Amino acid sequence: MQAIIASTSTIHGSSYLEYLKPALKTHFDKVDEVLFIPFARPGGISHQHYTEKAKKGLEDIVHIVKGLHECKDMKKAISEAKAIFVGGGNTFLLVKQLHDLGLMSVLKQSIIKGTKYLGTSAGSNICGVSMQTTNDMPIVYPPSFETLGILNFNINPHYQDPDSSSTHKGETRETRIKEFQNLNPVIVVGLREGSWIKMEGSHIILEGNLPAIIFEPGKQAYELSPKSLINF
Amino acid sequence: MQAIIASTSTIHGSSYLEYLKPALKTHFDKVDEVLFIPFARPGGISHQHYTEKAKKGLEDIVHIVKGLHECKDMKKAISEAKAIFVGGGNTFLLVKQLHDLGLMSVLKQSIIKGTKYLGTSAGSNICGVSMQTTNDMPIVYPPSFETLGILNFNINPHYQDPDSSSTHKGETRETRIKEFQNLNPVIVVGLREGSWIKMEGSHIILEGNLPAIIFEPGKQAYELSPKSLINF
Repeated sequence: MQAIIASTSTIHGSSYLEYLKPALKTHFDKVDEVLFIPFARPGGISHQHYTEKAKKGLEDIVHIVKGLHECKDMKKAISEAKAIFVGGGNTFLLVKQLHDLGLMSVLKQSIIKGTKYLGTSAGSNICGVSMQTTNDMPIVYPPSFETLGILNFNINPHYQDPDSSSTHKGETRETRIKEFQNLNPVIVVGLREGSWIKMEGSHIILEGNLPAIIFEPGKQAYELSPKSLINF
Repeated sequence: MQAIIASTSTIHGSSYLEYLKPALKTHFDKVDEVLFIPFARPGGISHQHYTEKAKKGLEDIVHIVKGLHECKDMKKAISEAKAIFVGGGNTFLLVKQLHDLGLMSVLKQSIIKGTKYLGTSAGSNICGVSMQTTNDMPIVYPPSFETLGILNFNINPHYQDPDSSSTHKGETRETRIKEFQNLNPVIVVGLREGSWIKMEGSHIILEGNLPAIIFEPGKQAYELSPKSLINF
């Protein structure tokens, strides 16, 4: 499996996918066409507009970006793609669409047999065992929370540290993840914005300049330095 | 129906339920015993510990606080209660338990026939049409997102305004609610911490010192002043 699994598509003060471009040039080397899955629809944007945004973001990197919504046979398109990009947005919406259309296992098989994968935010969340550590609002009811499971742990994208100066009484991200682990024995990797995971077969590396925060059930959370191997 | 539906149990710099005590003294006047539903388990706290916390929070107000988990016949306990308090925590967990145990409609009927209700956070979320505007993490998979529907709109508790100084690229609360309304024609009331809704029959009033923010599908969000009638 070859995948880039990023916390976010965009970092502060930079354009869409800009910070990832050097990594994407290598990742999509010799790739002419990327199949884009626009189902997560950030801000309710249409599939077509979202695909145009992806096309612009990848314009120096690949020649053709095709939206999955344009494909008559979506299963075939996913199976035959050389590279796939799943964009961010709402994870519930993305997961519901993939399950409803019978695409979750097709996508998994395609990645396993070598299709190069790029995920950002919701598109990274689905690489874990389940979508249960998403930050998103349950705007639709998916038939299952199970996801691709190409990683043997869960991702929490856009990870935010507790803000000790905050007067807000809603749960912190850390509390939410611990509530999850109280009921589910699954490791969670909190990926800060600007971090990504680079997967080359069984070789899984933390990329970007920031440490990730690792939650193992029953243990104190700890930080993992950039360029470390992720191996549980 | 007589209900207090609060954004949060606790405001900054104040103890559990403290800011609500004057309102609760009136609401639970002539009430000797409150049935506490501890299923949302904030931070993974046990049902027993959570019930003890509720008991302490209500100690100047009612004599007896009984945890629903202690009741052999939960349906009967809910039907016969004079007053019910549903505490906050994780909304997915709360809703799953209520559905799995067949208690959602029993609770609704009990409130309709006059049982005094208090909800905080997740316990307020479930008063809406659905739990789909919760801020919580999907740590368990409920059989449905439908909730009590004693209000004809949805609640977003712990409402937070967009922070214009933030460099974080995750969705704002407003964006999330608009993504929800893009697919669901349901009005959402964003309740800031310190605000609550007081329901006396069909008379529904915004209480506390802060305005609420009202999202009507297809309209610009607007603020509603304290002491205003909520009537859609």
